[in-house]
Amino acid sequence: MSEVRSKAGLAKETLVKLNGLSTAAKNDALLKMADALVANQHSIIEANAKDLERGRANGTSPSLLDRLALNEARIAAMADGLRQIVELPDPIGDQLDHIERPNGLRIEKIRVPLGVIGIIYEARPNVTVDAAGLCLKTGNAVVLRGGSSAIISNTRIVEVLQEALAASEIPVHSLQLIQDTNRASVDEMLKLNGLLDVVIPRGGSSLIQNVVQNATVPVIETGAGICHTYLDATAKPDMAEAIVLNAKVQRPSVCNSMETLLVHADFAAAYLQSIATSLKAKNVELRGCERTAQYIQIDQTASEQDYATEYNDYILNVKIVNDINEALTHIRTYGTMHSECIVTEDASHAAQFLQEVDAAAVYHNASTRFTDGFEFGFGAEIGISTQKLHARGPMGLPALTSTKYRVYGTGQIRS
Amino acid sequence: MSEVRSKAGLAKETLVKLNGLSTAAKNDALLKMADALVANQHSIIEANAKDLERGRANGTSPSLLDRLALNEARIAAMADGLRQIVELPDPIGDQLDHIERPNGLRIEKIRVPLGVIGIIYEARPNVTVDAAGLCLKTGNAVVLRGGSSAIISNTRIVEVLQEALAASEIPVHSLQLIQDTNRASVDEMLKLNGLLDVVIPRGGSSLIQNVVQNATVPVIETGAGICHTYLDATAKPDMAEAIVLNAKVQRPSVCNSMETLLVHADFAAAYLQSIATSLKAKNVELRGCERTAQYIQIDQTASEQDYATEYNDYILNVKIVNDINEALTHIRTYGTMHSECIVTEDASHAAQFLQEVDAAAVYHNASTRFTDGFEFGFGAEIGISTQKLHARGPMGLPALTSTKYRVYGTGQIRS
Repeated sequence: MSEVRSKAGLAKETLVKLNGLSTAAKNDALLKMADALVANQHSIIEANAKDLERGRANGTSPSLLDRLALNEARIAAMADGLRQIVELPDPIGDQLDHIERPNGLRIEKIRVPLGVIGIIYEARPNVTVDAAGLCLKTGNAVVLRGGSSAIISNTRIVEVLQEALAASEIPVHSLQLIQDTNRASVDEMLKLNGLLDVVIPRGGSSLIQNVVQNATVPVIETGAGICHTYLDATAKPDMAEAIVLNAKVQRPSVCNSMETLLVHADFAAAYLQSIATSLKAKNVELRGCERTAQYIQIDQTASEQDYATEYNDYILNVKIVNDINEALTHIRTYGTMHSECIVTEDASHAAQFLQEVDAAAVYHNASTRFTDGFEFGFGAEIGISTQKLHARGPMGLPALTSTKYRVYGTGQIRS
Repeated sequence: MSEVRSKAGLAKETLVKLNGLSTAAKNDALLKMADALVANQHSIIEANAKDLERGRANGTSPSLLDRLALNEARIAAMADGLRQIVELPDPIGDQLDHIERPNGLRIEKIRVPLGVIGIIYEARPNVTVDAAGLCLKTGNAVVLRGGSSAIISNTRIVEVLQEALAASEIPVHSLQLIQDTNRASVDEMLKLNGLLDVVIPRGGSSLIQNVVQNATVPVIETGAGICHTYLDATAKPDMAEAIVLNAKVQRPSVCNSMETLLVHADFAAAYLQSIATSLKAKNVELRGCERTAQYIQIDQTASEQDYATEYNDYILNVKIVNDINEALTHIRTYGTMHSECIVTEDASHAAQFLQEVDAAAVYHNASTRFTDGFEFGFGAEIGISTQKLHARGPMGLPALTSTKYRVYGTGQIRS
């Protein structure tokens, strides 16, 4: 039997035990995991050094090496992340509905774990800890499949976490790491219906698209964000500039940052120059539609392809529109239904935008950068869903649960 | 452009209009659809006669012809189904959560339509009406792909419904029927990411498995049910017999009927003979494990394959177990996580069964036949989900919705 099938099977076998655990027992295990990370930080850093060395030898980019690198502070942060998950309410067992039928049947809808969750991700070893903590807190077993660049780090981290589990009530096999970092192990996970209940990809768009295109196991799609900010004619200039700068440059590499700025022609005439100057001061490359060049100096003309690109970089498309409807049409055409913003003082335009834009999060007068589980107050985040089924937007612990109906009878039969 | 892509695109274009409609406007359209079915019943019955004639010429089985056949009473029932959907509360716009953040951001979680729903189904023309009504009530556009055996009926029904929509505020193109009944049109729908938001298969297991195995569009899996009833040592004999008979023979062809009866050895010794006699009186073929033959006369020995088969017929596997844990293990091995029942007077066994069995609906002392949207009091049912993501068990109107976050700011930016 393959490693993937064998480990998923071992994980599945722990579900009955895992699902019967109290919140206190799960929290105790999470605290032991946190303590174990800190207690074993030197061996984790040693393992990480080998990944870094291999990465440098392979010519890995400095930014990727930075994401991969662990030190005492980062390990402490991973441990703190687990302790924060301990503080969150446990959704498992929550009663979501209660129905009394005329025939006397009593029906309860109860939150239950999803089962075995597969997580497919790339370089960051902190995802290993984070995903393990979130899944186990919600009574799910988890099969982790991280990228090859972090395999030595991930292997040591999972060893440490499994040693902690061995001293807890959570079964050790509830946490599995796939050692095979060939593409074939991902392909196998994606078809593992019956053993995996869901696969969640975390990473760049090619990783996510591979999962979406090839999985027969249900998927929660995360991540891709071509987000827009629309400056309406009545936008307050200072507010507009602050929101634009924040949405573009506060952290350009993430999915909730802005890729295209839509500007009402009247607003552009009065205020776009000031905003463009501020963006250029932050080294943002500006690609504009033809009309944009009437108001500001652009670096190049924006193409159809540019509007459809998630830059995750210091590049911004700028497009002039005649009214809100033109902005809405552009968003419908190019948006990925992640996060969209209107800046306006016109209440009816705000209402129209919030009603018509079909996205996980739609903002009036605030930066799209707030689309985040922590910023929404969930206390955790397993990712940001860009699909409409099951969960949409930032996913906290309830997104890692399913439900079941418990039906209590006294001999009822159907007539 | 293909018919599938073109019609899905037309459906998608109606979403903004459709999503802005009031409940009253949607209900008005549904009532017009109901009236139109009755007003046009003769032309629908004429169209149906052609399907039936072709079916008979092709040697279609009598039971399939019966499912296909329409008459005045059945058309009236379809119209009544639409009127019942009118009476149901409209979930769209419901506020599911309200968050006030320390930075002043106000976040609302709102129910919104899923978007464009693809329904892939087989012979019954009533699914055409039912799915159209449920999808449109929830502000979704719908692309219907019915089976070739009912295509003339479905075409006429959809014409009638579209004529009714033309006199309502719901756009006519919100309702689409695919005329191409070749397999290729299904294959195309399954890959139509970006145009279809979800595909829901309704039909037999080969149809469902094709969808699950080949779709890149998100799927809500419905239907397959290998359901068990476990008679514990302390089960009341009369109640046990009534539940067993109901679960097996009240309507054997449906997914929530029982396929395997698990019986505690002590109960079997005292009462299995009586139950078997009643089942034989209803012409149920009994396939038993080796021990079963100690208690009753069986028609043949049950194989591994039998335990894994959804008969949907007058056939029942019977297996003797020594205790509840053996029953739970069997259900874990062969169940499809649909509906499972324990009959017992032992409260701790009932609690263990309801906790440990991982199924959409778990019953204590009631027939599994109750797993149904109407029996659960939902007033409608688009199917019974056997997956864990998004919706599980009988799906009412809320299962046809997604959510979005509306975020109200006063210029907040992220630091």
